[in-house]
Amino acid sequence: MNEMKTLLQAFNEAPYPVGGHGKRNVRVLQEVLKEIDENLDSDVYGKGDIIEDFQGRMADFLGKESAVFFPSGTMAQQIALRIWCDRKGLPKIAYHPLSHLEIHEEDGLKKLHHIEPILLADKTRVIGLEDIMNLQEDIACLLLELPQREIGGQLPDYQELEAISAYCRERGIKLHLDGARLFESTPYYRKSAAEICRLFDSVYVSFYKGIGGIAGAILAGDKEFVRESKVWKRRHGGDLISLYPYILSADYYFMQRIDKMEQYYNEARELADLYNQCSGVTIRPIEPVSNMFHVHVEVSKEHLESIFVNIYEKTGIGFTRYLQETSENSCYFEVSIGDSYADLPKDRLREAFHLLNQELSILI
Amino acid sequence: MNEMKTLLQAFNEAPYPVGGHGKRNVRVLQEVLKEIDENLDSDVYGKGDIIEDFQGRMADFLGKESAVFFPSGTMAQQIALRIWCDRKGLPKIAYHPLSHLEIHEEDGLKKLHHIEPILLADKTRVIGLEDIMNLQEDIACLLLELPQREIGGQLPDYQELEAISAYCRERGIKLHLDGARLFESTPYYRKSAAEICRLFDSVYVSFYKGIGGIAGAILAGDKEFVRESKVWKRRHGGDLISLYPYILSADYYFMQRIDKMEQYYNEARELADLYNQCSGVTIRPIEPVSNMFHVHVEVSKEHLESIFVNIYEKTGIGFTRYLQETSENSCYFEVSIGDSYADLPKDRLREAFHLLNQELSILI
Repeated sequence: MNEMKTLLQAFNEAPYPVGGHGKRNVRVLQEVLKEIDENLDSDVYGKGDIIEDFQGRMADFLGKESAVFFPSGTMAQQIALRIWCDRKGLPKIAYHPLSHLEIHEEDGLKKLHHIEPILLADKTRVIGLEDIMNLQEDIACLLLELPQREIGGQLPDYQELEAISAYCRERGIKLHLDGARLFESTPYYRKSAAEICRLFDSVYVSFYKGIGGIAGAILAGDKEFVRESKVWKRRHGGDLISLYPYILSADYYFMQRIDKMEQYYNEARELADLYNQCSGVTIRPIEPVSNMFHVHVEVSKEHLESIFVNIYEKTGIGFTRYLQETSENSCYFEVSIGDSYADLPKDRLREAFHLLNQELSILI
Repeated sequence: MNEMKTLLQAFNEAPYPVGGHGKRNVRVLQEVLKEIDENLDSDVYGKGDIIEDFQGRMADFLGKESAVFFPSGTMAQQIALRIWCDRKGLPKIAYHPLSHLEIHEEDGLKKLHHIEPILLADKTRVIGLEDIMNLQEDIACLLLELPQREIGGQLPDYQELEAISAYCRERGIKLHLDGARLFESTPYYRKSAAEICRLFDSVYVSFYKGIGGIAGAILAGDKEFVRESKVWKRRHGGDLISLYPYILSADYYFMQRIDKMEQYYNEARELADLYNQCSGVTIRPIEPVSNMFHVHVEVSKEHLESIFVNIYEKTGIGFTRYLQETSENSCYFEVSIGDSYADLPKDRLREAFHLLNQELSILI
């Protein structure tokens, strides 16, 4: 008798994954390089047309004076916060308790920059103006993540965002945007990236989420901020002799996908409707405000895994590669819509949801 | 009348550059990817076959328990020093006054890690055992760069190196190898990389110098050291979702060039002889001990530039892309031998040296 397949194995074998842009394999880079003249010169330690042109175009797109390409957002954001803290001579900032910096960076901000974060709001909701007004201490910078990934990609109302921005400016608090998924939230706000960025002093955006590049980030702000961030980029070991594999792919997939964010958003809402019709399933946020949401299911992780493996094998549809336990009898997973969704055979998707609802109805 | 060409323009147009492996253009990466199956999965945040296999093979090659791939040597080395300092509870290390960390990293070691370096030896020679024995303070770690790039790639005698290693072990001082050009120094020492690395507690090697990859580095040491370095790699923002563009090219060019280090070394000695025969030219070191050396010329930078531009245009030979002024009437440049040297038309090279010697003889 065979061991049952793991969820990851079944997902990897399923021909129709629901989220993402397809597999992260070498083809993603090969496709980019096929289009490029072999005589194009590498960037060299932050100089050269490849990097300077892209930085210029991204500064324009984000409505900022200047921009610098970084190998990672982790590096870019720590540096942004460091610059604002040094300017004010106050190593204190505020962000959400589920910020990337707090839970995914091994405390780099604290261990490398000795910056103390104050945690605002709680683990169920986004930061609001009141949280900032209630601060008992002065801070150099407030970091807002739009959308807040770890709670399903929630967004504050745009009016709230404007009020936060105005308040921070008035109080001399710099406002930094963790825009890892900024592009993905523009359709809900019905604003351009530049309009949203205008509310912030510095902005980080990523090129391997909605854009689907290999890796890399842009940090944008005023000229002096960007000049300083290049010095820190060298200190961090991020000023590589060649960043072009990331820049060329960021550029290529940006051009391919930046205008598809509305499509991804609409597809996320369509898919959320299908999940909402299943017993014991709750979507977070209830209605998606970007291309992503979280699916919470009132079934144990182990049980849902076996249900999913069965559905993946029967229908070829892959809902998710992993499940996160929340309690003995509940778990959740993240959905993030990319190119793959439009190519799903819709009859199989319906069948997969039919089977899921059937199984859950028995249990719940 | 046309403006005179700059040295860099003339060099870029010269079909026969003397040093290096050829132009750093996109073809370097395209050549690697042509060989790779498009279905090969990306590494993901330091996991996956692409990165783990390469790390394992490099650990073996360097004779160390474990190894981790870094986007840059700047990041790898700061982290190595930080780990050794934390172990001893003493944020103090020693290195050469022309160490990469002292002159090319915008003081990252000091600004991010608050580690104080003590400068050993002087700007004309490598660190010897006596320098270390004369230290007035305790240090956590000594960093040795083999070969010492900024002074023409000088190396200590191997016996001196063994004595330094023994002394450091006895005194509880960790010994770290800046092996940016370690592979290039193995022919002179007549030792394998692993034999040399045995003298050190931790080792960094680079993949875009003699190896000619795109970027990237390996840091190797014992298992616990490497485990900690992965945590710091994440803190620095170097734990990218995908490092495979660098890893695949490091691997490809390592296989292609690791056995050519002896050839490059012999060619460097041959070329040094040609320079040594020119009036007013001194090679540093007098006889090369790796694939590199510095060429010091007793002529002003401006004057030598015009001589070189003329020779490049007449012969197609490109000696160097830049000159570094040392005084009003002297300058120098670095030579680093790679694949290009073997392909030079030797008659043109002889002609270029004939012209150079002619011009210099008039002047000096």
